[in-house]
Amino acid sequence: MRLLGRVEEATDHSCGPESVVAQVVRMMRASLDVAGLVPGRVQRLAVASPGPLDVRSGVVDTPPNMPGWGVVPLQRLLEESLGIRTRIANDATAAALGEFRFGSGRGTRNLVYLTISTGIGGGVVVDGRLLEGTSGAGGEIGHMTIDRHGPPCKCGSVGCLEALASGTNIALRFQRALERGGASCLAPTGDGAPPTARDIALAARHGDALALAVFRDAAEAIGTGVVNCIHIFNPEVVAIGGGVSNAGPLLFDTVREVVDRYALPMPRAVVRVVRTELGEEVGLMGAAAVAADDRQPATL
Amino acid sequence: MRLLGRVEEATDHSCGPESVVAQVVRMMRASLDVAGLVPGRVQRLAVASPGPLDVRSGVVDTPPNMPGWGVVPLQRLLEESLGIRTRIANDATAAALGEFRFGSGRGTRNLVYLTISTGIGGGVVVDGRLLEGTSGAGGEIGHMTIDRHGPPCKCGSVGCLEALASGTNIALRFQRALERGGASCLAPTGDGAPPTARDIALAARHGDALALAVFRDAAEAIGTGVVNCIHIFNPEVVAIGGGVSNAGPLLFDTVREVVDRYALPMPRAVVRVVRTELGEEVGLMGAAAVAADDRQPATL
Repeated sequence: MRLLGRVEEATDHSCGPESVVAQVVRMMRASLDVAGLVPGRVQRLAVASPGPLDVRSGVVDTPPNMPGWGVVPLQRLLEESLGIRTRIANDATAAALGEFRFGSGRGTRNLVYLTISTGIGGGVVVDGRLLEGTSGAGGEIGHMTIDRHGPPCKCGSVGCLEALASGTNIALRFQRALERGGASCLAPTGDGAPPTARDIALAARHGDALALAVFRDAAEAIGTGVVNCIHIFNPEVVAIGGGVSNAGPLLFDTVREVVDRYALPMPRAVVRVVRTELGEEVGLMGAAAVAADDRQPATL
Repeated sequence: MRLLGRVEEATDHSCGPESVVAQVVRMMRASLDVAGLVPGRVQRLAVASPGPLDVRSGVVDTPPNMPGWGVVPLQRLLEESLGIRTRIANDATAAALGEFRFGSGRGTRNLVYLTISTGIGGGVVVDGRLLEGTSGAGGEIGHMTIDRHGPPCKCGSVGCLEALASGTNIALRFQRALERGGASCLAPTGDGAPPTARDIALAARHGDALALAVFRDAAEAIGTGVVNCIHIFNPEVVAIGGGVSNAGPLLFDTVREVVDRYALPMPRAVVRVVRTELGEEVGLMGAAAVAADDRQPATL
């Protein structure tokens, strides 16, 4: 699999789905230009989209991270605009397939992928096949409760991995620690924006005690989530991507400590816990893998 | 699938594996007698055994619920004694397959099975196939942490579903509540044995407040575990068996309340949470399903 072209743009979800779909169509045409292809040469299109979505009907259903989107028939809208057979997939699920096929999962049969950024998404490969579940909603590892007395999650549940350790929630928890009077080099000086998870990781690496405590607690929570995945799936690889994975050893040393301490010996003996090998391209490669796996006829 | 004969005996694990295997061999011969069969007519044997175990090598590895057992080549010992091709499977995993094939999972593709008794075991069917994992150790849902600040589990981790809600731990938590001065009709009167999870469920049904509080908290923990399974696997069925499931509505009403309150709408819409339809025979039917699925030649 080779990446021939890449176009990247920010989207403004508040404009609603029509304008975002129009933008995506324009970007797809631009990426074909970059790759030196024409639409008629393209057999299949796949889109890694924020969920929830139904892979069978091709409908995205009120994604919490895209305000203003209700029920959107994304697959049909793209097929009508581009005339190319299209599949949609949950972004984290697609990334899991990409990592399995082209990244740290090459040569394995069982992989868990976690993306830790604004939220926490997950995707799982069981015995060589993507875990989709009954309605294509499987693999929501970010909404696994690991602290039943923990804080509420925006999904409506409590103590989810996402509520404890997503980038957004790391920043929020740091903010609350400051408000309780915690001392940090990141204490706001007036009109500055509040520190992000990236700022907090950086400060932690430079020895800021409060930043370190907050980041370490989040990393321990991720470690607990990884142990759960190891017990449930007995995988060869747990791969972690997304913005928070850029913290590197600050994240992975703690996660591996928790795994070494708490995972059962038999599944622990066969698992590697790694950072995604595909970096920023894990989603793109995942979408490509979804398109390659599509067994429906290419003609519309 | 039809059950032709059944023989049941208690085992004394403290005598070590040799005597237990000899007992099992004797019981198998007796069950053939009951069924009117001779060993030569039997093509395959399957054993649902406490784990951990390796289904490929047929070795049971130091099961915590069978003291005195180290590494035991159970498959080889049985094949040598009986001359019948044998497969071993984790008891909860086998039960999951039995429930999927012959119980509440008939006609579905995705099922999670939980057995709640001394410990908590789990087994999962993903898209029609048993989740085994890399070393056959997958599906350990009982060792999913749902309270990361919770009590230690005998597996070495903390806040596992088993540590909060197994029969043994319901009894233990009730005992501690009594010791802290809690009032209950089950308060020991002298030389009696401490109340079991079954006693506690019975007292709770009769309105004993302390028994109700302890049992309800365990049922809520199981509800949280079930929500996690719904988010991770998006199954059509979550079936619960084992001694604690005999508590009936006292358990299931609370579990369903937690599911209704916390599970994401899309996977919740397609799932049933039920008591095993196979009752006490779920393990036997599971072993039969494991034998039926065995693709190796029958001859040794």
